[in-house]
Amino acid sequence: MISKNKTKLIKSLHQKKYRKKTGMFLVEGAKSVLELLQSHINVTTVVVTEVFLKEHGNMLNRKHPETEVLVASEQEISALGVFKTNNAALAVAEIPKSEAFSLQPQEYILALDDISDPGNLGTIIRIADWFGIHKIVCSPGTTDCFSPKVVSASMGSFLRVQLWYIALEHFLENIQVPVYGAFLAGDDIHQTAFAASGVLVLGNESEGIRKYLEPYIEHRISIPKYGAAESLNVAIATAVICDNVMRSKKEGTPIY
Amino acid sequence: MISKNKTKLIKSLHQKKYRKKTGMFLVEGAKSVLELLQSHINVTTVVVTEVFLKEHGNMLNRKHPETEVLVASEQEISALGVFKTNNAALAVAEIPKSEAFSLQPQEYILALDDISDPGNLGTIIRIADWFGIHKIVCSPGTTDCFSPKVVSASMGSFLRVQLWYIALEHFLENIQVPVYGAFLAGDDIHQTAFAASGVLVLGNESEGIRKYLEPYIEHRISIPKYGAAESLNVAIATAVICDNVMRSKKEGTPIY
Repeated sequence: MISKNKTKLIKSLHQKKYRKKTGMFLVEGAKSVLELLQSHINVTTVVVTEVFLKEHGNMLNRKHPETEVLVASEQEISALGVFKTNNAALAVAEIPKSEAFSLQPQEYILALDDISDPGNLGTIIRIADWFGIHKIVCSPGTTDCFSPKVVSASMGSFLRVQLWYIALEHFLENIQVPVYGAFLAGDDIHQTAFAASGVLVLGNESEGIRKYLEPYIEHRISIPKYGAAESLNVAIATAVICDNVMRSKKEGTPIY
Repeated sequence: MISKNKTKLIKSLHQKKYRKKTGMFLVEGAKSVLELLQSHINVTTVVVTEVFLKEHGNMLNRKHPETEVLVASEQEISALGVFKTNNAALAVAEIPKSEAFSLQPQEYILALDDISDPGNLGTIIRIADWFGIHKIVCSPGTTDCFSPKVVSASMGSFLRVQLWYIALEHFLENIQVPVYGAFLAGDDIHQTAFAASGVLVLGNESEGIRKYLEPYIEHRISIPKYGAAESLNVAIATAVICDNVMRSKKEGTPIY
């Protein structure tokens, strides 16, 4: 049985307000919890099934001797989280401190202008991780990356990609590498010789990249369309653009 | 007020069983309903707000004089559908009859092996439409393309892409064009000279392309990975592969 107080604490972490207040966040699902336990993030509590504990108890003791371990049924675990399934494990962990932002040579990063859907943000983090992008800067209005839905959709990639919430106009004004923005009517990404390093800006789900950022975008780029759909989902567009950037870096001669 | 019988009929269409029985399906949301009304699909009933009717009533009368028009509040419309928002219009339409399948020269199509998530299927339909792919063959276990969640996620593209549910092993055995399958360890799509025409096979969200289809896949292809994520979501993978196929068709010399 999980105490009332513990239940209240865990459930409060569904809300950004309490994540901010406590500096804690939730990770749901056996797979994500296992990846979390392999990382350097401090895990204060895990709530797991008997079966999970039998299989992973030794590792837990060895790697996280100070973590509080609570055993519960799948139903109880589900009731603590935001998902109906995904229920063999749940963890309460410390939100890691942001490092100071710095750009390495040859590095690409993403800049997100008010991505509002947690599923989209989580998927974008997973895509960044696939394409070797480790840094994402987000407008302050972008949905919180430590919400359970973002963490879950990132499929463990939240452990390998760092996010900063900052005023993008100042960030882009001062950055020393080319800034590419995804628009519906820009230059064909198949014909763009991407620089060795750069920022890829993706806009809000319905509004796209907003006007106030346009002055900072040097290259407006587009995914060529062969059919009739009006647009692509922002996570889909991110993946296609990242693939083209990596391909261009590998094959092409950078123009910068 | 919508009658009890009408409410019951509309709500029954949330379920595949009743869609099959009645030959009807639901379209939710003003934007999708408007696209539907511009298409050749028979629309038997629309439930719309006063505001929607004021704006689009003339077009409705002109293009669909026989469609039953019911006026309701946003709350009532939401209560009829599966979505909490998306609530200015809802339509009941006839499931269009499948044409006989045939492949055109220079054509690419998708083959889906048990895609189970409706959001993924809808997104794949939207991606196909963007890349000019008009035909998708699905294993019988693939989620129903006329479910409200698929229709909604396709963002209107369900009107321009046709789907067939058939035994993929027989289909692939008899098809006369190259068959490419997305695997985690296949040939780099950046270095693949895609044929002028072909089938792209995408597998189930957790199992990928299943063993029984492997004998029919001539080319195992992969999206190059530069980071650490274990995999990409199937809709994301579909988009990146389609982009590479279209690029290869435009730039490269087909090997077939």
